Amino acid sequence: KDVQNSCDERGIAIQKVGVSDVHLPFLIKTKSGSFQSVLAKIKLTVDLPQEFKGTHMSRFIEILSDWSQKPVSYREIGNMLTDTIVRLHAKRAHIDIHFKYFVEKEAPVSGLKSMLDYDCTFSASLARGEQLDFVLGIIVPFTSLCPCSKEISQYGAHNQRGIMRVKIKQVHGKFIWIEDLAKMLEERGSCQVYPLLKREDEKYVTEKAYENPKFVEDVLRDLVLMLRKLDGIQWFEVECENYESIHNHSAYATHIENVDK
Amino acid sequence: KDVQNSCDERGIAIQKVGVSDVHLPFLIKTKSGSFQSVLAKIKLTVDLPQEFKGTHMSRFIEILSDWSQKPVSYREIGNMLTDTIVRLHAKRAHIDIHFKYFVEKEAPVSGLKSMLDYDCTFSASLARGEQLDFVLGIIVPFTSLCPCSKEISQYGAHNQRGIMRVKIKQVHGKFIWIEDLAKMLEERGSCQVYPLLKREDEKYVTEKAYENPKFVEDVLRDLVLMLRKLDGIQWFEVECENYESIHNHSAYATHIENVDK
Amino acid sequence: KDVQNSCDERGIAIQKVGVSDVHLPFLIKTKSGSFQSVLAKIKLTVDLPQEFKGTHMSRFIEILSDWSQKPVSYREIGNMLTDTIVRLHAKRAHIDIHFKYFVEKEAPVSGLKSMLDYDCTFSASLARGEQLDFVLGIIVPFTSLCPCSKEISQYGAHNQRGIMRVKIKQVHGKFIWIEDLAKMLEERGSCQVYPLLKREDEKYVTEKAYENPKFVEDVLRDLVLMLRKLDGIQWFEVECENYESIHNHSAYATHIENVDK
Amino acid sequence: KDVQNSCDERGIAIQKVGVSDVHLPFLIKTKSGSFQSVLAKIKLTVDLPQEFKGTHMSRFIEILSDWSQKPVSYREIGNMLTDTIVRLHAKRAHIDIHFKYFVEKEAPVSGLKSMLDYDCTFSASLARGEQLDFVLGIIVPFTSLCPCSKEISQYGAHNQRGIMRVKIKQVHGKFIWIEDLAKMLEERGSCQVYPLLKREDEKYVTEKAYENPKFVEDVLRDLVLMLRKLDGIQWFEVECENYESIHNHSAYATHIENVDK
Repeated sequence: KDVQNSCDERGIAIQKVGVSDVHLPFLIKTKSGSFQSVLAKIKLTVDLPQEFKGTHMSRFIEILSDWSQKPVSYREIGNMLTDTIVRLHAKRAHIDIHFKYFVEKEAPVSGLKSMLDYDCTFSASLARGEQLDFVLGIIVPFTSLCPCSKEISQYGAHNQRGIMRVKIKQVHGKFIWIEDLAKMLEERGSCQVYPLLKREDEKYVTEKAYENPKFVEDVLRDLVLMLRKLDGIQWFEVECENYESIHNHSAYATHIENVDK
Repeated sequence: KDVQNSCDERGIAIQKVGVSDVHLPFLIKTKSGSFQSVLAKIKLTVDLPQEFKGTHMSRFIEILSDWSQKPVSYREIGNMLTDTIVRLHAKRAHIDIHFKYFVEKEAPVSGLKSMLDYDCTFSASLARGEQLDFVLGIIVPFTSLCPCSKEISQYGAHNQRGIMRVKIKQVHGKFIWIEDLAKMLEERGSCQVYPLLKREDEKYVTEKAYENPKFVEDVLRDLVLMLRKLDGIQWFEVECENYESIHNHSAYATHIENVDK
Repeated sequence: KDVQNSCDERGIAIQKVGVSDVHLPFLIKTKSGSFQSVLAKIKLTVDLPQEFKGTHMSRFIEILSDWSQKPVSYREIGNMLTDTIVRLHAKRAHIDIHFKYFVEKEAPVSGLKSMLDYDCTFSASLARGEQLDFVLGIIVPFTSLCPCSKEISQYGAHNQRGIMRVKIKQVHGKFIWIEDLAKMLEERGSCQVYPLLKREDEKYVTEKAYENPKFVEDVLRDLVLMLRKLDGIQWFEVECENYESIHNHSAYATHIENVDK
Repeated sequence: KDVQNSCDERGIAIQKVGVSDVHLPFLIKTKSGSFQSVLAKIKLTVDLPQEFKGTHMSRFIEILSDWSQKPVSYREIGNMLTDTIVRLHAKRAHIDIHFKYFVEKEAPVSGLKSMLDYDCTFSASLARGEQLDFVLGIIVPFTSLCPCSKEISQYGAHNQRGIMRVKIKQVHGKFIWIEDLAKMLEERGSCQVYPLLKREDEKYVTEKAYENPKFVEDVLRDLVLMLRKLDGIQWFEVECENYESIHNHSAYATHIENVDK
């Protein structure tokens, strides 16, 4: 007896059912035309019509195993969801893929290169016969230096690492590389962070941050201004969090916007 | 010079700005008329008009320090937000309070009592002159036993701990105690979990789960049926996640609903 | 048939068996003579002789439930372990209790009071007829300001939140209050952190940190000097971690020492 | 002025100083002769003589960046530490690398292949002129089924996912592949876990676990027996934790042993 296919009489169509907390290596396409092998944490779901008791969990793993072999980006995520819809006999499919993505950064003075890690997310939904709904998420670390502390103090100013959590949705067909988005975002802090800094670089970032004090509100506003102008932007969400060096809690700001074009 | 009050010319009213990751002891009112001292993790924010450069971060801590001394529930959360609106000269205020809440459970046969922990959230928003928007969140652990595994196997059936993440919003004035909500929810699994079980109890829960096999889809559907009937329910969100004993990932289902009345 | 008491023939005496990830409210005695209600995360274990197949898991929960009602400190932890040894017919018992503990801090200039959270641990072992082995652990946040950055830059200096993870073991009978230990430790950073700071306080902490630059190595060394002199100290372990404001990783130092007296 | 190289007069040689929480892609050599690209979280430290004020943090990042390009295993970790000792002018160097490693598993009946993730650690120390000290750590998920629950119940038995945390140290020159160690370890549970199971496989694992009930104590003892016989074993540490399906806490056992040969 196939229990999953047996009839259900509660009359409830389930919006999303599938697997979560699946870890797999994935290949993410890079701007340079190659791909990066990442550790992906994945949730993959479909809708389930009211007449079926259960979905077929093992098929999700088969789909993910297949796709973990091929370089993916915006377009392939759509194909993966189409594949899921077909193999699960579903009307809609949804995926969330979380991964650390590395981008090469050049130290500001010495020019030394090193790899910085950004936590990224591809969140996508697809309904049969409709356009792909794709949200790109990224967490970007930055340095923030407090304008009030600088203003009121004879010397110095408290500063700290902060993070921007940004999610964007562009119109169908538009896509921005993580490499490009990260670069635009991290310029909005008091200074960028780098994995590798030599003495001359450390002098540079220290002075740059001091010359460029920003509240969490300032960083948020500059991000909003920038994101409104992003090519094909439809919707965005921004969160900024400063891990205050003078407190054991964070300063926090957030903003969500549907962008009229 | 008061940097925060200086003028900002970017023309962006910030939706939410304040503090996050604040840890404080809080007193949560209990159904029995007393209160429970909990460890709260808090985010408190307000809107910031476009003409001001920054908010006053220290006031959030003062407000939270004051309120951490008084037993709170639905009504007091509203008062706390009113207080925040006044002291920050804001139009809107928002709070998220996460805490572990303990409810006494009786073992099913021996009747022995012990305390089970539930992760709870109060999420509330208030705009000047409007009604409080209040969402109660709770994570309830339960036992799930797989119907397919039971059906196809000569003996046994794989089972595991699962969790239900439930958020509910009731009409203004309606409020359900965590104690009552937890009880209604945990009856929807194959069996409830208990901190303290003696031999006779262990026999009971083992057999109860075996007699009551449920997919993650079944648990979700039974929760949906129950929540639709909850007194004054306006909106709910349910997530079920089974930490599969036969896999290293989870079976997952979720559903969101605006309830017409 | 009592499976746990059945005979085991593998000839292996288990060093520690019991329960972990138990969450319960606990009452921790305070320096002021009262107690603080905390959220405890507990591991409680005993040894198991080679001839027994299993321990009695439910008794651990009974013991913890009983003790969660009574204010505890150094001495009571010993009693709890004696109780565990008796009720489990064991030779040795071990406990780890993790909890956030709050201590009132006064802002340095305004004198305003607020509560700062410290992650604390009581780790204790007891063997029948022997003295209690007790290790107090505490994580203390602090501000660190980089001496190199200050030295090489025309203005400013990068600073950040850091944490000290300290564990200490004193000779039998000696005990230091968390309140006192936290105070001694947090003075070793470039500056202390506070939950609540007004403008005059912010000026103070900014300038204080700038006047007092310290590498992670400096903080560690000052902690070592201080801990060697602690009353009745036998052993200590220190870890310092700076959440660098200019990097996405930490600067780190650690040191362990048996102190000869 | 080179602040790090300036003289320190506190007379304290620091045991370990360096960087932590560094994330980088790393290439881990596989048994099959190839390598696997993993996401590594790294701590790298050296000793610091008492006469120096500070170490040179940026060199750690340079060393890690170089080594992140080359396939590594036991031997290369030693070379990386030698490199660190030379470039930091140190006497000792230590590294901890945490990563998820994937091993292909075949479903027990259908033979379908899928990738299972294991959390692994390479922890190594090297002193000038001495042999490499290398500890391999691995966390292996498994299914445990409770013998007591099976014995006392008319039907069924509670079961759950558990994890084994194993660390081993072999004599110099001996090395075991993660692939081989994982395989040996996961056979000690009531049943293994698999990412991909079809109906016939699910029947198999359900019945296999039911036929093979094991307390957390049983799993631990079987691991101890197995590890004592491991080729060239010098020392091991084992922790077993069952995420009980009937409780909201874990059953736990641990054992550490120096193996006489």
